[in-house]
Amino acid sequence: MTRFKLTIAYDGTAYNGWQVQATGIATVQKTCEDILSDIFHQPVKLHGSGRTDRGVHASGQVAHFDAETRMKPKAILNACNARFPADIRVLRATRCAKKFHARFGAKRKEYRYFAWNDAVIPPDKRLYHAHAMRPLDLAAMRAAAAHFVGEHDFASFTANPQREVKTTVREIYACVVSKSGKRICIRVQGSGFLYKQVRSIAGFILRVGEGNEQPDAALALLDAAEPRTARVPSAPPQGLFLWRVWYSASRVTSSQTV
Amino acid sequence: MTRFKLTIAYDGTAYNGWQVQATGIATVQKTCEDILSDIFHQPVKLHGSGRTDRGVHASGQVAHFDAETRMKPKAILNACNARFPADIRVLRATRCAKKFHARFGAKRKEYRYFAWNDAVIPPDKRLYHAHAMRPLDLAAMRAAAAHFVGEHDFASFTANPQREVKTTVREIYACVVSKSGKRICIRVQGSGFLYKQVRSIAGFILRVGEGNEQPDAALALLDAAEPRTARVPSAPPQGLFLWRVWYSASRVTSSQTV
Repeated sequence: MTRFKLTIAYDGTAYNGWQVQATGIATVQKTCEDILSDIFHQPVKLHGSGRTDRGVHASGQVAHFDAETRMKPKAILNACNARFPADIRVLRATRCAKKFHARFGAKRKEYRYFAWNDAVIPPDKRLYHAHAMRPLDLAAMRAAAAHFVGEHDFASFTANPQREVKTTVREIYACVVSKSGKRICIRVQGSGFLYKQVRSIAGFILRVGEGNEQPDAALALLDAAEPRTARVPSAPPQGLFLWRVWYSASRVTSSQTV
Repeated sequence: MTRFKLTIAYDGTAYNGWQVQATGIATVQKTCEDILSDIFHQPVKLHGSGRTDRGVHASGQVAHFDAETRMKPKAILNACNARFPADIRVLRATRCAKKFHARFGAKRKEYRYFAWNDAVIPPDKRLYHAHAMRPLDLAAMRAAAAHFVGEHDFASFTANPQREVKTTVREIYACVVSKSGKRICIRVQGSGFLYKQVRSIAGFILRVGEGNEQPDAALALLDAAEPRTARVPSAPPQGLFLWRVWYSASRVTSSQTV
């Protein structure tokens, strides 16, 4: 058996998230597993770095799988992109060490949240941005974002704290708000994320931008570490991209980049 | 009766082009007319600046309609954006002179053709760009583009020259190729365009970029003015945006911009 690492981009619009659902609804993982199983003539299980929710996109999801095959990574990449639907693309395929694990080996993740700040959102932006109709206060958003950096209890910034997690403490390495034309980008880098944590942070930062919260309210919410309220809404899924996942470099043995 | 001018953006992915089809397939014009008729409680006919083909987008299509109404342009804009599907947005609504005609009054049009130049096209770009897998020669594309500027017989750069047009001579004011990251943009401005003229020009320029034609071949093809051949393919529709339409300023009497 050989283990392979794939870097996958997808448009989440048509999928019920990454993870295989019991009911068999179309998910990115299931779609990929079915086609990989077909390519390798054997059942293939694909392990992602983590789930993405319904409607959320990825520019650099990472996943691994094992297969009994002599196919080269480049051939696997081409076979995948020939058979996968156009809303799922393999950007890189590499052979990797048996010890490599897409989920447990992930050292750092970056998400980007995009919003379009104008009275009307152009139709070609609607699937990949939230719509912020009123002018946003960028300076206030930046001040709020800075409060999230560091190690905090994010209990107030996750949708479902009763989910089986040992702790709601997480470390955020960077949380940066930028604007290019009408496009707002909230870049969040961290060691790992709680359920809906990025959309909660983005939802709160957007409320600050709209003038509905003061930037420093982020501090009080983090300190309180109480279950999430209406002050911390989930920003809509279509604005969110799982942007990149980092691993210890040593775990990847050979590389094939397109 | 009052005449109104709308500036409309649409994602053409789901539509069979702009113009109403005899068979009643979903078109942008029909979709808008049905909802406008509903808003004004009277049959509304919407006149666009021109057709766009199946799958082609618009950032600034212009259209006019007449209605017996006291609604202000701002209220019309809001009513449209509340009822139109998310893939059609009204960017501006203005009252205009009775003499204003979206099609016959158009003085100048700009189309933009977008291509993504990389081995793999990211899923979130696929609906709004053509995919050019191999590295394109930008200098050659620019040299080819320059040949189209001016007054020429574009018989070799239209799909259907037997269509009822008096002449295939048209004037191109600008034809400019630019690149930003992996994104190629071919900007074409002219007095008016023949059927599939922009996609033919873009298709040819892309072939030059791929090394399949010399830039100067554009001159020979223009001079020949013979029916289009395989040397001038239509670039795929999803890369094309009707970007902007210009009119004599005097014809618009009042203005409401969002």
